Amino acid sequence: MVELIKNGSVTSAKGFVAGATYAGLKTQDEDALDLCILLSERPTAVAGTFSTNKVVSPSVTLSRQRVAEGSVRGVVANSGCANCCVGPQGLEDAKEMATLAARHAGVAAEEMLVCSTGMIGVELPMALIRQSMDAIKVSADGGPRFSRAIMTTDTREKQMAISLELDGRTITLGGAAKGVGMIHPNMATMLSFVATDADVEPVFLQSALREAVDASFNMIDVDGDQSTNDTVLVFANGAAGSPTIESGSASADGFKEALTYLCVGLAKDMVRDAEGAQRLIEVVVGGAKTLGDARTAAREIASSMLVKAMVHGRDPNWGRVMMALGKSGIDLDESQVDIFISDIHIVHEGIAIPYFKDAVISAMSSPEVRFGVSLNSGGATATAWGCDLTEEYVIFNSAYST
Amino acid sequence: MVELIKNGSVTSAKGFVAGATYAGLKTQDEDALDLCILLSERPTAVAGTFSTNKVVSPSVTLSRQRVAEGSVRGVVANSGCANCCVGPQGLEDAKEMATLAARHAGVAAEEMLVCSTGMIGVELPMALIRQSMDAIKVSADGGPRFSRAIMTTDTREKQMAISLELDGRTITLGGAAKGVGMIHPNMATMLSFVATDADVEPVFLQSALREAVDASFNMIDVDGDQSTNDTVLVFANGAAGSPTIESGSASADGFKEALTYLCVGLAKDMVRDAEGAQRLIEVVVGGAKTLGDARTAAREIASSMLVKAMVHGRDPNWGRVMMALGKSGIDLDESQVDIFISDIHIVHEGIAIPYFKDAVISAMSSPEVRFGVSLNSGGATATAWGCDLTEEYVIFNSAYST
Repeated sequence: MVELIKNGSVTSAKGFVAGATYAGLKTQDEDALDLCILLSERPTAVAGTFSTNKVVSPSVTLSRQRVAEGSVRGVVANSGCANCCVGPQGLEDAKEMATLAARHAGVAAEEMLVCSTGMIGVELPMALIRQSMDAIKVSADGGPRFSRAIMTTDTREKQMAISLELDGRTITLGGAAKGVGMIHPNMATMLSFVATDADVEPVFLQSALREAVDASFNMIDVDGDQSTNDTVLVFANGAAGSPTIESGSASADGFKEALTYLCVGLAKDMVRDAEGAQRLIEVVVGGAKTLGDARTAAREIASSMLVKAMVHGRDPNWGRVMMALGKSGIDLDESQVDIFISDIHIVHEGIAIPYFKDAVISAMSSPEVRFGVSLNSGGATATAWGCDLTEEYVIFNSAYST
Repeated sequence: MVELIKNGSVTSAKGFVAGATYAGLKTQDEDALDLCILLSERPTAVAGTFSTNKVVSPSVTLSRQRVAEGSVRGVVANSGCANCCVGPQGLEDAKEMATLAARHAGVAAEEMLVCSTGMIGVELPMALIRQSMDAIKVSADGGPRFSRAIMTTDTREKQMAISLELDGRTITLGGAAKGVGMIHPNMATMLSFVATDADVEPVFLQSALREAVDASFNMIDVDGDQSTNDTVLVFANGAAGSPTIESGSASADGFKEALTYLCVGLAKDMVRDAEGAQRLIEVVVGGAKTLGDARTAAREIASSMLVKAMVHGRDPNWGRVMMALGKSGIDLDESQVDIFISDIHIVHEGIAIPYFKDAVISAMSSPEVRFGVSLNSGGATATAWGCDLTEEYVIFNSAYST
C-alpha cells in the first residue's frame, strides 16, 4: 500500500521547494552546508511537536507560537549554533532570521518558522546569516541539500519519501531528519521535517503527528538526554488534489499509518547513525495490559545502559532485560514473562530455559538485535529502538580538552 | 561532634559480631569470601529500605517481611548469586539459608534476614551453603571480613564507623557497604548494613533511615539502572546504655544527622569505586523552591551521560548542565540560573560569562569535580554524587562473549 520512493526527499511531495547554502556557522569542509529553507509554494496546513525540556531555544519558542497561530509557509533552519541560553538576544535573532528568510522567499515574516541546532550558549552570528540568506536557491530537487544542511555530527543525510493511494489519488510524504550524535562542542538535537501534498485539516494533522511521534521519535533512545531544540514539523499543502482528510474521514487512518511509517523510518535511521553505535536494538514488548505499559517497558529496556552494553558485547545476559523491565514500574507478573533474543527463546515464565549460547551470540552479532518480551497479561504491544553503548561513544562525547 | 573511628567497621558498635567464609559461590582467588553473618548479641531494633524494582529477589521479599515483623537479630549475606528470577525455588532457598545461619548463630530462624548479590537467573548452590555455614566464626573484630564477603566487582572494602556524644553517653555507628560495579555475569547490587549501639525506638529508626537514605544512597548514580536486590539495613541494639531515642526526644536530630553522615560516607565511597570511574562528581543545587526540586535537579545533572562524559574529558561544556537541569522538569527561571564548576563562576543569570578555560580544565582534572547550580528562586539545597563515564565502563560491562 505504502510505496517507498527511490531517492525520495523532503521535496518529493508536490508543491514543496527547498535549498541550502554555506554561511560559515560550521567549520568548512567539502560540501559543508549550514543554512537552509523548506517552503510550500502554496498555503499549507502545519503541525509541530517540540522539546519538553524546561530550557528551550528561542527558535523553539517562536516556532511553537507560529504553529499555534496556524498561518505558515515554511521553515528556515541552521546548524552549528543552537541559539539557546543567550538571553533576550536569542528571540531577537530568531525573529530576524525568520524575517530574512521570509523576505527572500517572498512570504510574510510571520509565515516562516525557525529551527536551530548546534552549540548552546553562543549567539547566532547574524552578520553571516544576513549576508548568506539570499544565496539560498530553492527548487523542487533541493531536498537532499536541505537534509545535508541540518546535519551536525550526523555521518549521512537522513531522508525518505513514500507514496500511497488515498481516495483514488496518489499522495506523497517526504521527510528529512537530523539525529542524535554529539561531538564537542555540539549538543544533540533531533530535528525532523515532513512535507506532504495531501490536504489535511490542521487539528487532525496535529493529532496525527502526535500519534506518529509517540510511536517513532518518542520510542528511540541514544543516551537518555533530551535537547533544548528538538522539533518535528509537518506541512500538508494539498497539492495532490485529494479530498481534505480530517478526523473521521475514510482516509484518516490510512494517512496516520503513512505518517507513522515515515516517522518510524526516519527515527530508526537516526538510531543507526547514533554516535559510536554499531548495532540497532529493537525491543518489542507484547501482551501488556495497556499501550502505555508496553511503551514504557520497551523504552526502559532500549535505554538501559546495561542492556546497551551487553548488546555491544553480544552477551545474552537476560537478567539485565528483566531488571530494566522491573525498573519500568509497570504492572507485571514476573512468573508470566517470556524473553526472546532475536527470536531465540531464552526465558519462559520468568525462568531461564536451556539455550544454545553460541547461537544467541551469533544472532547478536548482526547489525540489528531484537529483544522480544511477552508479558502475557494483556493485548497491547509496542516497539522501541536504541543502539549499543560503545567505547567510541565515550571517546566522542568526552572530547578531551587536554 | 561526630568523630571518625580509625579502622572502623560494621562491628565497631558494642554488642555486634560478624564473620565470613568462602563457600565457593564466587571464583576463588586469594582471600575470597562469599558468605557472611552480622549478628547482634542482644535483642535489637531493625529498619530497612529495599529495591523498588518490580522484579525483586526472594531474599528481598523475605527480609522485607521480617523487618516489618520487627523481631530480628542479624543478617546472612552471600555474594556471587542474586537468587533472583529463579521461580518459587528462590524463596525456599532464602528461607533455608536464613534457617542455617540462625541455627549456627543460636537464634530463632525468623530472626535472621537474608541478602544476596551476584548473577541473576541462577539458583543458589544450596549444597555449598549447607556445608559452609558452620565454618563462619563471628567475633567483634569480624567487621572487615564481613565487608569483604559482600563484594562482587568492588575493588576494595567499603566500611566506616563514627562515634558521638548523645545524652552524655558515647554511641557508635558502624557501617559496611558494597557498591555498584558490574562485570559479566554479575549485576550491580547496592547493599549496606549499619549497626549502632544506640537504643532507638523502631518506628523512629525506620523514619530516620528513610531520611538518611534519601540524602545518601538515593542521591548517587552510576548508570541509572536499579538492581533487583538493593537493600539497606540498620540495627540498633542499645548496648551503649544511652536513653531510648525516639521521635521528639532531645537527641533525635543528633542521631539522624549521624546516621545520614555515615550513609553519605558509604554512598560516596561506592561512587568512587564505581566501575571504570576516575572522578567523583558532586552536584550541589541551591536556591530551589523545594527540597524535592533541588534533589530532582541535582540527581538529573549527576546522572546525565553527557555530563558524565564531559567530566571524563575535562570539558567545561556547561550547556549540558543547563540541558540536564531543564530535562529534570522542575520549576525553573532560566534567566536566574548561575553555574559554577569547582567554584569557578561559568554562567550568570543564564548566560555564559568569560572565564579562563585553562583554569576550569585544571580544576576538572582533580579526582573530585564539583558543579554548583544556583536557581536563585528559593531556599532549598541538595547534593548528588555521580562518577564520570569512561571507556573502561563500556569495556567492563559489554564483556565480549566472542
